[in-house]
Amino acid sequence: MNAGGGRVRIYDVARLAEVSVATASKALNDTGRMTEETRNRVKAAATELGFRPNAMARGLIQKRSFTIGLLTNDTYGRFTLPVMAGISAALVDRGVSVFLCGIEDDPALGRVHLDAMLDKQVDGIIASGKRIDRRLPVDLSDLPVPVVYAFTEGQEGSVTLVSDDFQGSTEAVEHLLAHDRKRVVHVTGPETFASVRERASAYRAVIGGEGRVLYGTWSESWGHEAVAELWGTDGEHPDAVFCGNDQIARGVVDALRERGIKVPESVSVVGFDNWEIVASQTRPPLTSVDMNLEAIGREAGRLVLELAEGKPVEPGVRKLPCRLVIRQSSGGDAAVTERRGGLATAAD
Amino acid sequence: MNAGGGRVRIYDVARLAEVSVATASKALNDTGRMTEETRNRVKAAATELGFRPNAMARGLIQKRSFTIGLLTNDTYGRFTLPVMAGISAALVDRGVSVFLCGIEDDPALGRVHLDAMLDKQVDGIIASGKRIDRRLPVDLSDLPVPVVYAFTEGQEGSVTLVSDDFQGSTEAVEHLLAHDRKRVVHVTGPETFASVRERASAYRAVIGGEGRVLYGTWSESWGHEAVAELWGTDGEHPDAVFCGNDQIARGVVDALRERGIKVPESVSVVGFDNWEIVASQTRPPLTSVDMNLEAIGREAGRLVLELAEGKPVEPGVRKLPCRLVIRQSSGGDAAVTERRGGLATAAD
Repeated sequence: MNAGGGRVRIYDVARLAEVSVATASKALNDTGRMTEETRNRVKAAATELGFRPNAMARGLIQKRSFTIGLLTNDTYGRFTLPVMAGISAALVDRGVSVFLCGIEDDPALGRVHLDAMLDKQVDGIIASGKRIDRRLPVDLSDLPVPVVYAFTEGQEGSVTLVSDDFQGSTEAVEHLLAHDRKRVVHVTGPETFASVRERASAYRAVIGGEGRVLYGTWSESWGHEAVAELWGTDGEHPDAVFCGNDQIARGVVDALRERGIKVPESVSVVGFDNWEIVASQTRPPLTSVDMNLEAIGREAGRLVLELAEGKPVEPGVRKLPCRLVIRQSSGGDAAVTERRGGLATAAD
Repeated sequence: MNAGGGRVRIYDVARLAEVSVATASKALNDTGRMTEETRNRVKAAATELGFRPNAMARGLIQKRSFTIGLLTNDTYGRFTLPVMAGISAALVDRGVSVFLCGIEDDPALGRVHLDAMLDKQVDGIIASGKRIDRRLPVDLSDLPVPVVYAFTEGQEGSVTLVSDDFQGSTEAVEHLLAHDRKRVVHVTGPETFASVRERASAYRAVIGGEGRVLYGTWSESWGHEAVAELWGTDGEHPDAVFCGNDQIARGVVDALRERGIKVPESVSVVGFDNWEIVASQTRPPLTSVDMNLEAIGREAGRLVLELAEGKPVEPGVRKLPCRLVIRQSSGGDAAVTERRGGLATAAD
């Protein structure tokens, strides 16, 4: 029953007794309201498993509800769901459930939902959003429980986790240069986004001042327009396009194909977000920067529990590394690329 | 402060006093633990707004937590997030917050998360999933709170809400026939899905036995393969393709363009799901069947509250209508299509 193979945890007891962790905790502490049958079943499970909480853990267990609240204004969920999956993965073995509550841009409404969470006595709150340079429309300072910010702007002195877009973009552009690309351009989203400016500055830092950045919208159609602009004139054309997201990259790849320009033979293309459903269905499949949102979620889950248990956590912004996922569109290592695509090469 | 313009609700009092609805309820009922300052602030807000709960409402308010739990195994969220948005929209004016908890396919784990929700004394539970012919891996019968199933298979005798795929598919095929299409084929997902069989049987019912159904995967690449199969031989080719989802339709439209076949002039294409990000970026934009998942969520929220308030709700499966969203790919009514696209027609 003890999946971890190590010390028996309250979670294992709860699972065997088929009750929630909070109920198991109350049963063992002789607190809370439940039938004698339930209390006895929990105690029997604890005995069977040899569960022996130390005094410190008993105290902590008693005070906790084993629930973390996740507040987000990303109602479309593209960014928050991977973050939530990471939080759940980090906490499930410790018997903690994650409850997500979506808030709109109405601060009074945000307050109502936040209070509903506090009423439920969550052990901590993780705030998440759809961009790293905007705060949620609700004040999370001075709450009775710890707060960790994951993929949204945190308040002063908070614990905040974001992706390291500079590092991720640097890797993407260096990958293109390492494959002999000489004229890399950057086609990206609106300059009002901090992540756009961060990605563009990394691009410029690697290229060394020679670069060209085209700002637009986060859409496939902008990818088409950018190709028309870049290839619409005579003279030397780019041999690589680093795109601000996968949708732009999808548009660029499709537009190049329609002009008879081969990807990756003549032009390499790299996207950003590693949005599987777009990246894998692009022809050829897209090399893309993955922000590792699940890792951000796992770390947020770990840190909010540390805080809930009274352990010290250094405040500040932590940037977690992105990783470049190489598929065919960048003309990367052919063997790796083709093996990923399920094809054997002559060399195999 | 009273947005609805009608009777003052406990929610309005909570909002003015800047507390949760549960706290406002307890303050007015002289129950619960809070500071005197908070209790007085709530009472002052109630007086200011002229809030007068009747005896019945007082009783109901006292017993409720103003939280609905949403359980789902759709961790990708494509179906559950619109359902959640609908639930929230239905309940927000009544001061009820929705907490989503993702469960995996491990029944023991599902039970832990479910118990965590019951510990928080949710007023009701809505179960949702990623397909209508699969149950969540957790037993929701005999719970102390009402359960409504929305876009997942319900247990015997439950209140279940699903989309009417037969009606939606019928509308899609009739739309194609109404625009003089004579040879409509159906390219869809795996036959193991009930929704695939339902959509195919509607297609066959409208076409009248002459049809052709190609089963495959839910992917763009299957759309490409299907076009290669349908157009790879001599003889009469289809003049319309009704697709089982938008990704297949996207593949079909792209494959036809690459063969120099004009959509919608020579072939009309209709998708299913109305997944905005795919449908709107397809060239031309996709006509698609929308399952109205938000409406399913709104109805689920309304019904679970009715049940929580002790009102009778007839059990059984309710099929809510889909709606056909017409864009350019089906060559529908040109005036409507072009107005939607922001262009004026000569007739305007």
